[in-house]
Amino acid sequence: MDSLDPRIVADTHPVGELALSHLLLKRDRRVPWCLLVPRKAGLTEFHQMDRADRSQLMEEVSSLSAAIERGFGVDKINVAMLGNVVPQLHVHVVGRRRDDFAWPGPTMGVPGAEDYDDAGLAETLAVLRRETGLG
Amino acid sequence: MDSLDPRIVADTHPVGELALSHLLLKRDRRVPWCLLVPRKAGLTEFHQMDRADRSQLMEEVSSLSAAIERGFGVDKINVAMLGNVVPQLHVHVVGRRRDDFAWPGPTMGVPGAEDYDDAGLAETLAVLRRETGLG
Repeated sequence: MDSLDPRIVADTHPVGELALSHLLLKRDRRVPWCLLVPRKAGLTEFHQMDRADRSQLMEEVSSLSAAIERGFGVDKINVAMLGNVVPQLHVHVVGRRRDDFAWPGPTMGVPGAEDYDDAGLAETLAVLRRETGLG
Repeated sequence: MDSLDPRIVADTHPVGELALSHLLLKRDRRVPWCLLVPRKAGLTEFHQMDRADRSQLMEEVSSLSAAIERGFGVDKINVAMLGNVVPQLHVHVVGRRRDDFAWPGPTMGVPGAEDYDDAGLAETLAVLRRETGLG
C-alpha cells in the first residue's frame, strides 16, 4: 500500500517515520537534502490528496524546514514537488547555502551526487532525528 | 504592506487576487507557469507563516494546480518554493509537458523566457480566470 518507488529507495537513506510521511535523506552530502513521501498508494499530484492530508504533509514540510535550518545553519530552504522523473508523490526539502554546488539554481536534476561516508551519515542522521523529534 | 518585489512584477502578468495571494502569470508562453505570492510583508520562508496561512496558501496551490491541469491539458504539475534569487516568498505552480523546453528538469532558473503576444496572453488569462473562478 505504501511501497516506495525503487528509484527513491536507491537514492536515499531512511531517517524515520512521521505521522503521514516517510522521512528520507538524499545520498548527497553536498547539501542537507530530505524527501518526504506520504504513505498513501497511487499519489502523483499534491492536489489529488484530500485536504486533511495536504495540511498534514505541509505541516511536516514546515517542521522539517525549521529542523534543517536549526540543524545545519543554511541560508535558505527550498521546497519542491516535481515528480517528472519519479511519479510517486514526494517533496524535496533542501537546505541551501550561497556557496553550494547549484546556487542559486535548484538542486533537483543536477548530476554529481556524492554519498555520505559512514561517519558523515551517522552525524547527519543524528542531527535530523534530534531536530525533528525522532531521536 | 503587501508590495511585490520589482523582479516579480517585471517577470509576470497579473491574473487576479485570491483570498491570501496575488495570482500572477510568468511572462513565458513556453509553459503555463503561475506564481502565488501571499499578501504578507517580510515573508521569505514557508515555515515562517502561521499554520492557518500555510494551509490557505497550499489550498490555493492545490486549486491552481487543478485549474492548470483542466485548462491546459498538461502531463504534470510542478510546485516549488525556492527564493534563492528573489527572497519574497512565492510559489511556482507550473504545468509541464513531456516535450517542453526543460523536461524532465525544473523550469526554474532555465533562461530563455518568451513573453506572450497580445492574443496569446488574452487567451491564457481567460483560461486561468475561468478555471480558478476569477473570470
